[in-house]
Amino acid sequence: MTDTRVTVWNEFVHERESEVVADVYPDGIHAVIADALEERGFETETATLQEPEHGLTEEVLAETDVLTWWGHAAHDEVDDEIVERVKEEVLNGMGLIVLHSGHFSKIFKSLMGTTCALKWREAAERERLWVVEPSHPIVAGIDDYIELEEAEMYGERFDVPQPETLVFNSWFEGGEVFRSGCCYRRGNGKIFYFRPGHETYPVYHNEEIQQVLGNAVEWAAAGDDQPEPVQGNHEPLEEIDTSDDRTVH
Amino acid sequence: MTDTRVTVWNEFVHERESEVVADVYPDGIHAVIADALEERGFETETATLQEPEHGLTEEVLAETDVLTWWGHAAHDEVDDEIVERVKEEVLNGMGLIVLHSGHFSKIFKSLMGTTCALKWREAAERERLWVVEPSHPIVAGIDDYIELEEAEMYGERFDVPQPETLVFNSWFEGGEVFRSGCCYRRGNGKIFYFRPGHETYPVYHNEEIQQVLGNAVEWAAAGDDQPEPVQGNHEPLEEIDTSDDRTVH
Amino acid sequence: MTDTRVTVWNEFVHERESEVVADVYPDGIHAVIADALEERGFETETATLQEPEHGLTEEVLAETDVLTWWGHAAHDEVDDEIVERVKEEVLNGMGLIVLHSGHFSKIFKSLMGTTCALKWREAAERERLWVVEPSHPIVAGIDDYIELEEAEMYGERFDVPQPETLVFNSWFEGGEVFRSGCCYRRGNGKIFYFRPGHETYPVYHNEEIQQVLGNAVEWAAAGDDQPEPVQGNHEPLEEIDTSDDRTVH
Amino acid sequence: MTDTRVTVWNEFVHERESEVVADVYPDGIHAVIADALEERGFETETATLQEPEHGLTEEVLAETDVLTWWGHAAHDEVDDEIVERVKEEVLNGMGLIVLHSGHFSKIFKSLMGTTCALKWREAAERERLWVVEPSHPIVAGIDDYIELEEAEMYGERFDVPQPETLVFNSWFEGGEVFRSGCCYRRGNGKIFYFRPGHETYPVYHNEEIQQVLGNAVEWAAAGDDQPEPVQGNHEPLEEIDTSDDRTVH
Repeated sequence: MTDTRVTVWNEFVHERESEVVADVYPDGIHAVIADALEERGFETETATLQEPEHGLTEEVLAETDVLTWWGHAAHDEVDDEIVERVKEEVLNGMGLIVLHSGHFSKIFKSLMGTTCALKWREAAERERLWVVEPSHPIVAGIDDYIELEEAEMYGERFDVPQPETLVFNSWFEGGEVFRSGCCYRRGNGKIFYFRPGHETYPVYHNEEIQQVLGNAVEWAAAGDDQPEPVQGNHEPLEEIDTSDDRTVH
Repeated sequence: MTDTRVTVWNEFVHERESEVVADVYPDGIHAVIADALEERGFETETATLQEPEHGLTEEVLAETDVLTWWGHAAHDEVDDEIVERVKEEVLNGMGLIVLHSGHFSKIFKSLMGTTCALKWREAAERERLWVVEPSHPIVAGIDDYIELEEAEMYGERFDVPQPETLVFNSWFEGGEVFRSGCCYRRGNGKIFYFRPGHETYPVYHNEEIQQVLGNAVEWAAAGDDQPEPVQGNHEPLEEIDTSDDRTVH
Repeated sequence: MTDTRVTVWNEFVHERESEVVADVYPDGIHAVIADALEERGFETETATLQEPEHGLTEEVLAETDVLTWWGHAAHDEVDDEIVERVKEEVLNGMGLIVLHSGHFSKIFKSLMGTTCALKWREAAERERLWVVEPSHPIVAGIDDYIELEEAEMYGERFDVPQPETLVFNSWFEGGEVFRSGCCYRRGNGKIFYFRPGHETYPVYHNEEIQQVLGNAVEWAAAGDDQPEPVQGNHEPLEEIDTSDDRTVH
Repeated sequence: MTDTRVTVWNEFVHERESEVVADVYPDGIHAVIADALEERGFETETATLQEPEHGLTEEVLAETDVLTWWGHAAHDEVDDEIVERVKEEVLNGMGLIVLHSGHFSKIFKSLMGTTCALKWREAAERERLWVVEPSHPIVAGIDDYIELEEAEMYGERFDVPQPETLVFNSWFEGGEVFRSGCCYRRGNGKIFYFRPGHETYPVYHNEEIQQVLGNAVEWAAAGDDQPEPVQGNHEPLEEIDTSDDRTVH
């Protein structure tokens, strides 16, 4: 699907305020993700919080098949109107990939309907993302698990609706587990929550993580044959076939 | 579960503005539903849009195990703050039963994350609510289907997340179908969407519909052993057992 | 996916015993389905009950990406060993499309774990297959519904596990509904149950039905990156990384 | 539900052949489970492989609301006819709780439709069963997790259909995770797979594990208002209302 157009969104705050983070992502997390997807043949653009309309104008979204979302420190600074716009696009068929701390973004919470709360600890722990649905396209090319030497821990209970398909289930050195790859369908759009990606660890430089991101983009991209956008209001049916006594007078 | 406390909410607009509706529900839809639940042994209160805080104060919600919701003409008049309060209660374990045109209420849409749009036609059509999960507690005492001689038609596509459990599937005389009994879990709360109940038809006077409402209240009521309310923010783990080398330094 | 290989299986009994059926399907139901899939660019073979091993040798299955199954009168004549062989292939990633009366086939019942019972009536009724998940690839190119002028009625309750995704929901003239397009994943394989197709009606000659069959084949076909076949037995883990104290002594 | 009748089934092989196991379960695993359920107010009987019809006569099953199943070494010795009988009871509404190595029992595999394969290692590892659905009745009274000092490891990928509700998610010291509490509905029956319980560890003596077993029995017990048993064959509809032109000629 080389014609799939991806917009990589990043709040782009930590990278500009913390040297530690800047060392890992000098041009921002979005740059690394965009490069990885570009290499895999996707048409990729980036957008950040600081741009007008956060870089998510109607024009940009109209030309986006899949949007990836990374945010952490500035969830509240995201304009509600833009969140509403993105949500409408997702419900009309745009794919959405929510990364790591994006679990607390306005857009993810508003699509899930829950608090999306979880447990966490920052202690450079080893994480193993176990594949629980090996034939799912999102894990194509991945073995039994992906191992990350150092990760921030996210632990259950993760307050989301039970995933329609759970593809990854994480183990953490310190004693926790987490449903780290969760698939949902909302309206006409497909949503994938993918846990890895703390700003202080080079997670998005990892080959396997990049492979999953590419797989997820392909999975989330709407087919060419998309239905009419869902109308946000009632639709009276046009007159139906009344060629017999069965129909309504 | 005679100690289950139900609050029956109604926007209470049509009944006061339309003689047709007033003939069917002279004291309001809420009065008929409350009586039906009272008879079945539930502690029942009512609340309406016109009351201060729409009758849904923190005190009222704190003493509510299950809230039933009927609205149609005045969804937009429901205060966002009250919607947020109700949502928090649901996520903390309060049951919610959304009735008929309540599919477009702020509270339902915010818990589903979708437009909740559907097709509709008002033509006094016969409806059959077929039971698709006969062992589910919500259909206890119901045969193969419930038949309503006259109903407003709701038709697919109904834009909601696929139900965790679909219990009723409706047939309409004019040629449509609709997923008319849908179960969801959001946070610690259970949600049941039940389609029947247009204001111009005496649907809530129907014995079988009342039976389903009673069953749904029992199903949606939280157990006595509810977990701590989910915190809407990260929770650092307290220090975990470090009695060996396995834990984090 | 022009390289997807489909095997169209048919018990091929009614067509040879009933003139009525032979008029609709002179060369058998499998011939019409195979032609329709061939036209859509799939590599298609057929197999029938009467062939040695029912035409489903290990060689044939090894070269089959998706198997379609039509049976009705002779479910019991299908050899248990062949059923076991097909089941193993499905669990290892072969797609399976079960058609109409195939709901009662040994292979479908053994994958569902339930009786797969349903209600039925043969009365040339009008059927409407309503799309409930319009963005699903199986309904690509289909409008709000497919209408069939004459069909055998299948009615709820359909005793199957709740579908992982319900894509079609049928309305019948006589007053019933039926979940007529149901998606499941079992092991590494994808399964689609599609209701239409009684032998006395020319359903498989219908353009839209053929479109859905083609869509379903694409959907059910395993990716190129299939995981190792699941072993039907325990798998001791090879020694895991023991570079620290975390592992087992 | 003090009137809920439980039959605790055990193959009862290891306890009679291994001193190690006999030390932990001198009267058999079934005795310890039965006592624990008895204490919680259930009417409890036991049955073992060695009894005529494995102790699962039609009379016994007719008086059983919930059956618990523990097997490991002798799955193949369970008579297919008895498995078929148990399966029919489950589909007609009897609850089934499958324990630990019972994942490979004929009854569980035939209800799941998959291989039910998993990874395993016996190394006295610490296990934590994390609660992922804290408001579910099966975890009533359980905190964030149950910790077992020594357990046999079961690891993903666990080849089962995605659970309708996942309630426990296990962490293991050696680096694996496992979906250790899985809810399913098959026919009219509810099924709970619960992972803990290797014969060489005193897991069923654990208070919290016993609490979960009691909760699971209550959850799995059919309501008083059970539907007619599903017929394992087609059911022609009796003549439907023909008072108008809508019906079939």
